[in-house]
Amino acid sequence: MKGLDPFVLRDLLKAYLMEDLGHGDITSCHLPGRERTATAVIKAKDEGILAGLPVAAETFSLLDPRTNTERLAQEGAAIEKGTELARVTGPAFALLRAERTALNLLQRLSGIATTARKMVDLIASTGTRLVDTRKTTPGLRLLEKYAVTTGGAGNHRMGLYDCAMIKDNHIKVAGSIKDAVSAVKKAIPFTARIEVEVKDLAELKEALDAGAHLVLLDNMDLPTLRQAVDQAKGRALTEASGNITPENILAVAQTGVDYISSGAIIHHAVWLDMNMKIL
Amino acid sequence: MKGLDPFVLRDLLKAYLMEDLGHGDITSCHLPGRERTATAVIKAKDEGILAGLPVAAETFSLLDPRTNTERLAQEGAAIEKGTELARVTGPAFALLRAERTALNLLQRLSGIATTARKMVDLIASTGTRLVDTRKTTPGLRLLEKYAVTTGGAGNHRMGLYDCAMIKDNHIKVAGSIKDAVSAVKKAIPFTARIEVEVKDLAELKEALDAGAHLVLLDNMDLPTLRQAVDQAKGRALTEASGNITPENILAVAQTGVDYISSGAIIHHAVWLDMNMKIL
Amino acid sequence: MKGLDPFVLRDLLKAYLMEDLGHGDITSCHLPGRERTATAVIKAKDEGILAGLPVAAETFSLLDPRTNTERLAQEGAAIEKGTELARVTGPAFALLRAERTALNLLQRLSGIATTARKMVDLIASTGTRLVDTRKTTPGLRLLEKYAVTTGGAGNHRMGLYDCAMIKDNHIKVAGSIKDAVSAVKKAIPFTARIEVEVKDLAELKEALDAGAHLVLLDNMDLPTLRQAVDQAKGRALTEASGNITPENILAVAQTGVDYISSGAIIHHAVWLDMNMKIL
Amino acid sequence: MKGLDPFVLRDLLKAYLMEDLGHGDITSCHLPGRERTATAVIKAKDEGILAGLPVAAETFSLLDPRTNTERLAQEGAAIEKGTELARVTGPAFALLRAERTALNLLQRLSGIATTARKMVDLIASTGTRLVDTRKTTPGLRLLEKYAVTTGGAGNHRMGLYDCAMIKDNHIKVAGSIKDAVSAVKKAIPFTARIEVEVKDLAELKEALDAGAHLVLLDNMDLPTLRQAVDQAKGRALTEASGNITPENILAVAQTGVDYISSGAIIHHAVWLDMNMKIL
Amino acid sequence: MKGLDPFVLRDLLKAYLMEDLGHGDITSCHLPGRERTATAVIKAKDEGILAGLPVAAETFSLLDPRTNTERLAQEGAAIEKGTELARVTGPAFALLRAERTALNLLQRLSGIATTARKMVDLIASTGTRLVDTRKTTPGLRLLEKYAVTTGGAGNHRMGLYDCAMIKDNHIKVAGSIKDAVSAVKKAIPFTARIEVEVKDLAELKEALDAGAHLVLLDNMDLPTLRQAVDQAKGRALTEASGNITPENILAVAQTGVDYISSGAIIHHAVWLDMNMKIL
Amino acid sequence: MKGLDPFVLRDLLKAYLMEDLGHGDITSCHLPGRERTATAVIKAKDEGILAGLPVAAETFSLLDPRTNTERLAQEGAAIEKGTELARVTGPAFALLRAERTALNLLQRLSGIATTARKMVDLIASTGTRLVDTRKTTPGLRLLEKYAVTTGGAGNHRMGLYDCAMIKDNHIKVAGSIKDAVSAVKKAIPFTARIEVEVKDLAELKEALDAGAHLVLLDNMDLPTLRQAVDQAKGRALTEASGNITPENILAVAQTGVDYISSGAIIHHAVWLDMNMKIL
Repeated sequence: MKGLDPFVLRDLLKAYLMEDLGHGDITSCHLPGRERTATAVIKAKDEGILAGLPVAAETFSLLDPRTNTERLAQEGAAIEKGTELARVTGPAFALLRAERTALNLLQRLSGIATTARKMVDLIASTGTRLVDTRKTTPGLRLLEKYAVTTGGAGNHRMGLYDCAMIKDNHIKVAGSIKDAVSAVKKAIPFTARIEVEVKDLAELKEALDAGAHLVLLDNMDLPTLRQAVDQAKGRALTEASGNITPENILAVAQTGVDYISSGAIIHHAVWLDMNMKIL
Repeated sequence: MKGLDPFVLRDLLKAYLMEDLGHGDITSCHLPGRERTATAVIKAKDEGILAGLPVAAETFSLLDPRTNTERLAQEGAAIEKGTELARVTGPAFALLRAERTALNLLQRLSGIATTARKMVDLIASTGTRLVDTRKTTPGLRLLEKYAVTTGGAGNHRMGLYDCAMIKDNHIKVAGSIKDAVSAVKKAIPFTARIEVEVKDLAELKEALDAGAHLVLLDNMDLPTLRQAVDQAKGRALTEASGNITPENILAVAQTGVDYISSGAIIHHAVWLDMNMKIL
Repeated sequence: MKGLDPFVLRDLLKAYLMEDLGHGDITSCHLPGRERTATAVIKAKDEGILAGLPVAAETFSLLDPRTNTERLAQEGAAIEKGTELARVTGPAFALLRAERTALNLLQRLSGIATTARKMVDLIASTGTRLVDTRKTTPGLRLLEKYAVTTGGAGNHRMGLYDCAMIKDNHIKVAGSIKDAVSAVKKAIPFTARIEVEVKDLAELKEALDAGAHLVLLDNMDLPTLRQAVDQAKGRALTEASGNITPENILAVAQTGVDYISSGAIIHHAVWLDMNMKIL
Repeated sequence: MKGLDPFVLRDLLKAYLMEDLGHGDITSCHLPGRERTATAVIKAKDEGILAGLPVAAETFSLLDPRTNTERLAQEGAAIEKGTELARVTGPAFALLRAERTALNLLQRLSGIATTARKMVDLIASTGTRLVDTRKTTPGLRLLEKYAVTTGGAGNHRMGLYDCAMIKDNHIKVAGSIKDAVSAVKKAIPFTARIEVEVKDLAELKEALDAGAHLVLLDNMDLPTLRQAVDQAKGRALTEASGNITPENILAVAQTGVDYISSGAIIHHAVWLDMNMKIL
Repeated sequence: MKGLDPFVLRDLLKAYLMEDLGHGDITSCHLPGRERTATAVIKAKDEGILAGLPVAAETFSLLDPRTNTERLAQEGAAIEKGTELARVTGPAFALLRAERTALNLLQRLSGIATTARKMVDLIASTGTRLVDTRKTTPGLRLLEKYAVTTGGAGNHRMGLYDCAMIKDNHIKVAGSIKDAVSAVKKAIPFTARIEVEVKDLAELKEALDAGAHLVLLDNMDLPTLRQAVDQAKGRALTEASGNITPENILAVAQTGVDYISSGAIIHHAVWLDMNMKIL
Repeated sequence: MKGLDPFVLRDLLKAYLMEDLGHGDITSCHLPGRERTATAVIKAKDEGILAGLPVAAETFSLLDPRTNTERLAQEGAAIEKGTELARVTGPAFALLRAERTALNLLQRLSGIATTARKMVDLIASTGTRLVDTRKTTPGLRLLEKYAVTTGGAGNHRMGLYDCAMIKDNHIKVAGSIKDAVSAVKKAIPFTARIEVEVKDLAELKEALDAGAHLVLLDNMDLPTLRQAVDQAKGRALTEASGNITPENILAVAQTGVDYISSGAIIHHAVWLDMNMKIL
């Protein structure tokens, strides 16, 4: 499971399974034949990028270690309507109880990877990298960010704890970019970077002078963005954000900005259709 | 907070906050001015149906009981671009740390309510009720289902534990609808209902004879659906599902089916744009 | 383990084991010979109905997966004083630490199944079904309700979440049965039922007219109960409760009521005596 | 709350409440009038010894800190049918959701206190003290043992962690009382005692010689018990156990044994009847 | 794992691993070759007493059950600089992620055992036993106390729950030793002991008369301590504490006191140097 | 509480308190006078740097919100033997139960801050910054790293999740520095840095060419270290580690290295002596 820590993942999966199981599956727990070994096929009913198959496999095996998932498609691969993605074998009782949670994960993550891939392809001719944001579904961030990378984009920080970021609201509270950067920079682990969100070239200068490692160029028009990128070159990495659309993303990338961040990769992704059938 | 149990909600919100906070917010914890009392305004940047404002308020107050959220719009109301939704007052430190989690919830839930309202409006002329499914984001089901009701639609079962449901995979395992229904029905709490998914009129007959309380009429064409609804009348409540689209939903409803279920209310909803600015 | 979800069960069992273990078993952790493989026999010292043997087996195997429990009696069977119920083999260290928790469960659950069976037998000549209530030992509800079904009775709702119930206190708060039923019924999942507790025929009429699916006929004398059952026939399922005793239960059942609920199945059950001896 | 640590108690109460609430109370969350302040009276419908009133009060206030419980009877007092035990005031929504959990605790604990008091009274003329065992309902031990003391009896060890105890199964594993006591005694905290279960005078001698602090005289006839008590005097505290009944308990106590332990105080206690009515 | 309950241990180890892993190890999760089987050697870089090797082994196997730890040195043995302590084989991915947590435990526990052994050796000629206190690192007490016994010293109580202890602050609150002892003694499990901290002979007399089982003779000079030991002989076990140093510990022991307690065994212990190298 | 997130902190403190409380404090729960309001003074019995006072205050208020802690000394200040650090007022019952946990934290954290300050002072004449490592007490890392900053030193990464680090074992697994850096760098969040541990100038060159942001110069002699610092200048930040002692730290710093990391700040720190007396 490249890129995901299985020890950490299991805790998340357990919570997701318990959300669906509650005090127990009142259908499957009484079903005739439930102890039988069965095999189920998971198929795509739509085309897109596959993400989450190892996660789905882990969901089944966490619920019951006797299940085995044979993966028939590669994580990150383009899949077509009708593609067989996996065959899961195990006690019918286990397949029935984990089905919905596994599919919900697989469909949501594949939906995100599909959206990511589409946006990444639009700027493939440039050196700019597309990244996500912290606008993720509460409770699912780790996996949503995993899906973003599976789709070919990159990750911004994982949370409030692994990179400092001075945004407009922080500046209002602190009084100035300089004071905010100065106080935060000397207090955080030296291994961590500090990013500052700036809305114009004056703020950019203040941020660079204060020693920001990364600058988020927020909602700038293309000429300003180009100037900002030039100004920051060699002093800080640059990130453009704000109203990135399929229509304007290439032009933004062509300014030479290092990163373009987009919440929409995640929050505008819809599910890829899939189903699971017991043979 | 109509329809949500605040005692239960707090556990969910705590997990969502911790996902973002990790070992702590390394920006806000060192920011000059962080102990100051500040007021922030949450505004819509898009139009739609508002859902989740009491949830966002609870998020702030869970993080810090000294925060106070003044709600400026009604849960379930239609909001327009620019509408002020709430003013949150409290220690800057608290506002900054809960902001993203509160907004992520508010935007996701409002997005779902907006989708739900649109679909509900399409069948307003009929007696049929639109309901959701268990196709929800893992970890967020309770709130996503709450948003569905806020948008005017209804809920299907909450999980595997509060209604028995014999679907195609269960039938394959059990061997027959009759055996499955019979075994499950006598074992579950008498207060719980049992639903059977059927794909044709023969299966419908078997389900009704077996004593199903609810029948899910899966992917039937309109004439078959009409017949099925007639056949079930007075014996079981009927639910239509499968490929429900804005284009066909009214025709489906006009068959007289009691419920139409749609996963898309949730899994095809995208976020409503909002932001929060400290004054 | 028919009727119990093993994934859910393990969380409960872990909490029960930890309650007894605290920071660790200070006797067994230092005992000479503790790593030896041993076999223990669990025997009944009293007669009754066996319930909880799969639960006890799971308790041992959760504590140490190397234990193996050979079951010598059927769940739900009538057992006699001296019956060998199971042989548990595994590291002595594991048998000694899980013994008390496993036996406490087995004795409590068998006690409940025994009480349930006795009451069920009293009304075997009728079509009425005996069910439990939410008067259960805090922390043990899932297993106590499992024991009730093992003894041959049925379950009422599992908690506040899987069936709506308007009782006397709710009516006082809401002002009227009609308002309460109307508000609750349209808000809950359509898959859930709503039950109303009524104390006389006037309230029964109001509940039926409001659309209650189930009516709890509380503490009615036999003639009134008979009338109520007639009145509700075909409109709602009927449940009688209040002061059900071995003496009056048959007469109550003979009114034709669908269900008789009794908290005493659980709260007046005492333990069945058993012990475990290492060979 | 004499004898119970409120910080520890809250964790237990939270788990008990969540067991009943599940994903939320689907009746009360939609009930008209639920935000109103209401007062409810808790009354005894049976006579016995009251235990658990502070626990019930804490249950209400944990669910909603705005509730207030006025206690009208003393913990440990003899109550009669009809006695008003408490008045709880707070949001109706909170009273309705905590009612069952609070009453279940109160009724179970009062039932145990009542049984304890009856048995204690039988040996009041002697210097022997009645104590409980580890035969408690899984998940409720702390409160059940609290109820035992409220009824006037004493506690045996709380779990496997706070007193070492060499029982018959331990002796079989270790090979001899001497080896078991010797290994365990030198390894446990010096503040902890070690008890040995013996079935005859030979084993008693071995236990005393090995340095047991406490000896459990298991199932001895009265003459043997008397000899055992004499033999142990000044060397170890004595505890009699096994088939203690109301009929024989006084005779056992009159042997001069220090403690009589009885699992039946807890596992044969049934609930005291009570109810709660909103005014 | 003599003296540690593995079921209880795993919960602690999981929390320790999660502290280091956070949302996952961002280095190892992406490392080429991470799925390869590797073997690592753990070596001492310092001399001292080994403690925690079974704990380290359990840490690796909890993270990934496919790891296997071959122990090359005995728990409690004196080790020298360069001693190979263990070889751990398993997926490289697992070794890399558990390494730091396992070593941190091993180094901390060995450091404590080393300190304990040194102090124990100083009083080996006497019958006095050295014990620890509750001055332990928050979150690590169980393992720190385990290390103390591995080093040859003994444990005082494990927490506030397994032995009653009336210290100076308790006496101030209760008003007198007598009142405090009397109230506490009759309320706690009869299996538990009660210790009283006394600062002079008058308090000692009061404690003994009140029935203390253990007396902590706090900070007495040697002549007073000797008198106190004499006075308590046959009535209570004696414990000396306060400013115990390597210089004075033998003299204190030679007073005949039963126990000497020292927080410094734990809070003045420093780590034993070790490392782990993948071959 | 500068630098610590109170929402996150409370979870840690709860676990620490529960470790000491177990099933409850059996002394204080029965103590006469326990409900009285009392005031306690916390005093230093040693000199050093104060760290953890806000943490101790939060410990008391978490146990019982009615406690109030008046701080009499500044976090990070030099304190002397006898300095009054704080006065805590609240129910005696709360003071007695939180005392040990609060003091254990305060003493451990102050011990670390004291060690940190001493080492920082040794290199105050240079531009080099002293930082900690991941060699921390399992379960207490967040607070130990907080104490390091309170003492004037800085933090290295918090765990495996907030900075990538290629150490010797990673290089062995991956085959080469280049392959390891290349794979990891493109996979982690772009906001995160990557550090490489190198043992000589050849490895340093490889790491710099691979694009490491930070280089850990492990155990180099002074001349090599000086060369390494020169070579890395402008390409990566430099960190020296390995056998840093009070004797050699200044010489190491004078090489111009950016950071010196030392596990000893934490793992060789011993507690600062303090006590708490109820007035």
